[in-house]
Order: sequence, then structure tokens, then C-alpha cells
Amino acid sequence: LQVLEVNRNLLIKNDEQARRNRSLFKSRGVLAVNVLASPGAGKTALLERTLADLCGRHPAAVVVGDLATDHDGRRLRRSGAAVVQLTTGTVCHLEAEMVARAVEQLPLDGLRLLFIENVGNLVCPAGYDLGEGLRVVLLSVTEGEDKPLKYPKIFKSADAVVVTKTDLAGPAGFDAAAARGAIESVAPQAEVFWLSARTGEGLGPWYAYLERRLGHGAG
Amino acid sequence: LQVLEVNRNLLIKNDEQARRNRSLFKSRGVLAVNVLASPGAGKTALLERTLADLCGRHPAAVVVGDLATDHDGRRLRRSGAAVVQLTTGTVCHLEAEMVARAVEQLPLDGLRLLFIENVGNLVCPAGYDLGEGLRVVLLSVTEGEDKPLKYPKIFKSADAVVVTKTDLAGPAGFDAAAARGAIESVAPQAEVFWLSARTGEGLGPWYAYLERRLGHGAG
Repeated sequence: LQVLEVNRNLLIKNDEQARRNRSLFKSRGVLAVNVLASPGAGKTALLERTLADLCGRHPAAVVVGDLATDHDGRRLRRSGAAVVQLTTGTVCHLEAEMVARAVEQLPLDGLRLLFIENVGNLVCPAGYDLGEGLRVVLLSVTEGEDKPLKYPKIFKSADAVVVTKTDLAGPAGFDAAAARGAIESVAPQAEVFWLSARTGEGLGPWYAYLERRLGHGAG
Repeated sequence: LQVLEVNRNLLIKNDEQARRNRSLFKSRGVLAVNVLASPGAGKTALLERTLADLCGRHPAAVVVGDLATDHDGRRLRRSGAAVVQLTTGTVCHLEAEMVARAVEQLPLDGLRLLFIENVGNLVCPAGYDLGEGLRVVLLSVTEGEDKPLKYPKIFKSADAVVVTKTDLAGPAGFDAAAARGAIESVAPQAEVFWLSARTGEGLGPWYAYLERRLGHGAG
């Protein structure tokens, strides 16, 4: 009971900071995109490719969270985008306060897109609003079709679900119809994209979606 | 500070229960194997195959944890083994107390192997001793070679690391040498196995390892 109380207070504090983040992003015209997935589902690969293809038209930056290492930060910096790497130690998710501190290190003038790559985890990040304008959950074809059913909370919270690594669907024996059914039953609200960051297949609709959301007034 | 205090107390209570579990398993001659990995790394597939191949010689049972659904429990029951499915709701790991209650539902007489399939998560389960005799962490080739470096705590705690889905190494562009280096640098204590539950490649050494550990007096 004491634990529940403490956790509830933490989430209330997080929500307050998330509201402050959200109004900052809105006032600066920045679309903040919270990117969530299992470890190794292809978050960094999708962002590398997206930055390479969109960065020229829409100034972008990244906040990236990992328990340890700055591998992802270094990969993402090659795009030329400003990147802040957060290392969370043993913490299994990003919190609004961590994002607020990271954003202080970023040049917001002229920025349009802020990607927030969360810690690889389909459980813990679900309950933490970061103040994002868009919440995107990835599902790689190699993870299996039933992951939305097994991790419903995070998929229910998604604005978009991106099925990644579609170039491996054949070798992995991926059942696309089953995955589509699982996503639709858990996350009927989500727009769904199917793509491979490696081959480039399916990136067009994903970019069009981001640009549409940018056009709607970011934040 | 209050949170840290509460969490510390929870972990102390968990460790006490884990000690009770461990002595129960030892007194009954049961080797308990805690199986940890990302969502979709192939825990259930490995256990399906292992049960099919070893169950005849070594009576086995499974406790399987998921946030939601009894998919894995149903898959594993097809082997004929006794299976207890735990659904944790929003809890991102199994705890020793959950395992103790699940084990009450299992016939321990004559049992030799108890597999505990943890929640798909490379962060939270690391700190929770379940009283297992063996802790096995899976890394699928599709997740990328650097996962041990990015989730060091869980890999450091492993008795064995099992690299899964080796049949997808080619299509996934997996760098085996880099993975080997990452595992050795983070988890030099771990025995390492490379296998595909789908093709059967590499299962022999994994089974030999389990049987060796059974021979050493389980628990």
C-alpha cells in the first residue's frame, strides 16, 4: 500500500512535468515523438534513417535513453542532428523530468521535430507521459505477432504502431494477418505503418504521417 | 529517498522468499531455471523444444509469466508438462513470492526440472532472485550485438547466455564476433550457447549443459 502511494505520487509529479514539457513544445512549434519498443526492435535504425531523409527539410533533434553506453547517441549524431544521450543506470524508462533537463541542452530555435528514443522496454515506459505530441510503438517482425496482446498497456497508448524489419518477415515466418489482427484488437486507435529501415520499403507513408502531424501544428 | 527505502525493503523481502524457494528446490532435487530475455527473443520457443526433447528423460514443469494472455502457457502445455501461467498485469518482472505460490500448484514428486519463463524484459527482472539454481539470459540474433553492453546488469547475473534464432543470423546481418565480444566483456562468467529452436541447430550442447547441472545436484 505504501508502495502504491509512493508510485502514485511519482506519477502525479511526472504528469505535472509532462504538462510543462508539452506547453514548451507547443509554444516552440516542436513536434515531440516518443518512440517506444522492445530492446532491438529497431528504434535507432528507424531514427537514423528518418533523420537522414527528413532532417534537411525539418530541423530535428533527438533525446535518447539507455541504461548504459552512448552507442545510440553516437549512431544518431552521424545524421548531423543534435543528440542528447541519457543513461538511466537501472531505471527502466524515461521520465518527463529527464526529458526536460535534456531539452535544456538543445537549441530549440527553428527546431521542428524532437525524437525521444525511450529505454528498450515494452512495460515500464507505458505509464510515463513525457509531454510528447505523438507516441509511436514499434513492433519488429522478429518478435512475434502476439506482442500487442501480451503488452496491451503500451500498445493501447500508441498514436501509431510501426511494424519494423519487414525485410525479415519471410525468413522469420512472420504472419502479417495475425499481427494486423492483434494490433487492431488492442490498438484500434493507432495508425499502422509497415516498413524496413534497412531496405527503405514503406518509409514514404511514415514520413507523410510525420509531415501531416507537423502541419497540424506541433506540440 | 522514500522510494529507495521502500524498494530496498521489497528486495530484502524478495530475497528472503527466494532463499525459501531455493531450499525447497534443493530438498526436492529440482533444478529451477530462470529464463530471462527481451519480448520476442524466443524464450517460449526454446522451452517448447527443450521440453519436447528432455521431458521424457527428466520430468519437467514450467511457471510462465506474462503481463496478459495465457498464450505461452497454452503453447507449453502441448509438451505434456505441467504449466502454471502467471499474469502480472502491469508488473514488469516475476517475484519470488509469485513463484512460491505457483509452485504450490505443481506436483513436485519426481520433478527434476522447473523452468521459470520470466516476463519479457531486459531490465526489471535482473534484481529479483527467484530462488533459481540457474539463471539463463537469451539474446536473439535479431536484437543486435550490443544488447549485453546496453543491459549489463541482467547479463552480469547470468550463469548462461543463449544466443537464439541463429537461423536468422544471415538475413539479419548479425555480427557473431561482435556479439561474442560483447558477451565476454560483460558476462565473462557465463557459459555461452548458440542455437536455433526452429532448426534444432546447437541444441545438443544446451541439453548437455542442463543435464550436467542436473547431475551436480539440483537446486
